[in-house]
Amino acid sequence: MKQITSVQNPYIKSLVQLQEKAKTRKQTGTFLIEGQREIMLAQKGGYELETILFLPELISENEIRQLTRQKVELIEISKEVYQKLAYRDTTEGILAIAKTKSLQLSDLKLSENPLILVAEATEKPGNIGALLRTADAANLDAVIIANPKSDMYNPNVVRSSVGCLFTRQIAVGSTEEVIAYLKEKNISIYCATLQDSTYYHTQNYSTPSALVVGTEATGLTEAWRNASTKNIIIPMQGEIDSMNVSVAAAILIFEAKRQRGF
Amino acid sequence: MKQITSVQNPYIKSLVQLQEKAKTRKQTGTFLIEGQREIMLAQKGGYELETILFLPELISENEIRQLTRQKVELIEISKEVYQKLAYRDTTEGILAIAKTKSLQLSDLKLSENPLILVAEATEKPGNIGALLRTADAANLDAVIIANPKSDMYNPNVVRSSVGCLFTRQIAVGSTEEVIAYLKEKNISIYCATLQDSTYYHTQNYSTPSALVVGTEATGLTEAWRNASTKNIIIPMQGEIDSMNVSVAAAILIFEAKRQRGF
Repeated sequence: MKQITSVQNPYIKSLVQLQEKAKTRKQTGTFLIEGQREIMLAQKGGYELETILFLPELISENEIRQLTRQKVELIEISKEVYQKLAYRDTTEGILAIAKTKSLQLSDLKLSENPLILVAEATEKPGNIGALLRTADAANLDAVIIANPKSDMYNPNVVRSSVGCLFTRQIAVGSTEEVIAYLKEKNISIYCATLQDSTYYHTQNYSTPSALVVGTEATGLTEAWRNASTKNIIIPMQGEIDSMNVSVAAAILIFEAKRQRGF
Repeated sequence: MKQITSVQNPYIKSLVQLQEKAKTRKQTGTFLIEGQREIMLAQKGGYELETILFLPELISENEIRQLTRQKVELIEISKEVYQKLAYRDTTEGILAIAKTKSLQLSDLKLSENPLILVAEATEKPGNIGALLRTADAANLDAVIIANPKSDMYNPNVVRSSVGCLFTRQIAVGSTEEVIAYLKEKNISIYCATLQDSTYYHTQNYSTPSALVVGTEATGLTEAWRNASTKNIIIPMQGEIDSMNVSVAAAILIFEAKRQRGF
């Protein structure tokens, strides 16, 4: 079996690039996944693994063989190399290089009465991860990122989603493409925005619905407000008129779920 | 006016301790606040300021005088000192040393029909900050931290609450004290827990209610489950059975608010 012990190894350097650069992920069509559960969920979600790197002190080849039935190259790495590539401490000792998916809107398979979360231009990868966690908990049909600011295989998205990146259907597209898609599918568009909005809990989300959230700083672009079936707002009764985007999305999503009887 | 330009200055060193050590905050009964809005909200919330440190390139003495009517010592500091003490980049240039409050349960002033959030042993200061933000948005009567793992004046709590630490009534106490307090006040106790629980949205929160959340890792202690009026659960329909505590709390709080007609 191949072994790599030096952080100066060109292949390891290329993996550091893969972690750090969206461009490298795009060019190679690959990304890194860290952790056993995440790797299992990625496989379950149809992701193809190319290579598994592991720290033999922490996880054995046998354990890895049980984790995957895919034909994957295994590489033993040293603790130094592991720490160079991994974000978490060395509790799991396993990393995988997987192929990215295309994430096209046209690939989404929706149920008959879909409930979708759309997030426009979410800046922080950690917020995308939090949205994906909530989307998983609510078993949403899909999460769509409009005008994305980071690619979905950014290591901070992967990590903060705790694997939910792989359990949900995800698509990205320009705001115009996403609006056209929703309209073509006859999905009502509920935009979380301050302008001309009505309280979120007065609306009915029991038919095909997309809940659309913007950035914490600037909200949604005008295109969304123009395309909106209804603008909705969470009543803010405190002194500080701001809410974390993942908290706001969770409140909207679970109100829709409640109306739908879960 | 006093000026401090060296990070080796003993007073500045004592402020670094104040940032870093809960013990120092407890001994001195003071803590640090960063940012104009936060300082304004702290004053509005009845916090007494002792000292303001400012970077004259970014904020003038006049601007500070408009920010506070309290009799506060002003100290000009250098950029180097500011960067040593501040977490954010130098966009605001103002820090205050304020007196802590006692945060006793007996000091809470509740409305006739209170809605309270209780969080037990929340580990991450950032999660406490997020809970406080939601508590502010929902205009809760109070936030109570049971068996706190960090003091409420931890700089990460102050910062992540974006000032909501000062806009809400806050108390801390042991789990036993908090349960006794709620029972004495005839406040129903709804515990977010997996055991013997019913769906959260089937319960009625329109009478005096406390929503109680535990840690993401271990949930609530048995004492809470024993004291519970009803154990409640958010239906989890995804593949990953976990939810960020601040997201879960927000879903519960806003369902209670919805039932109460906001």
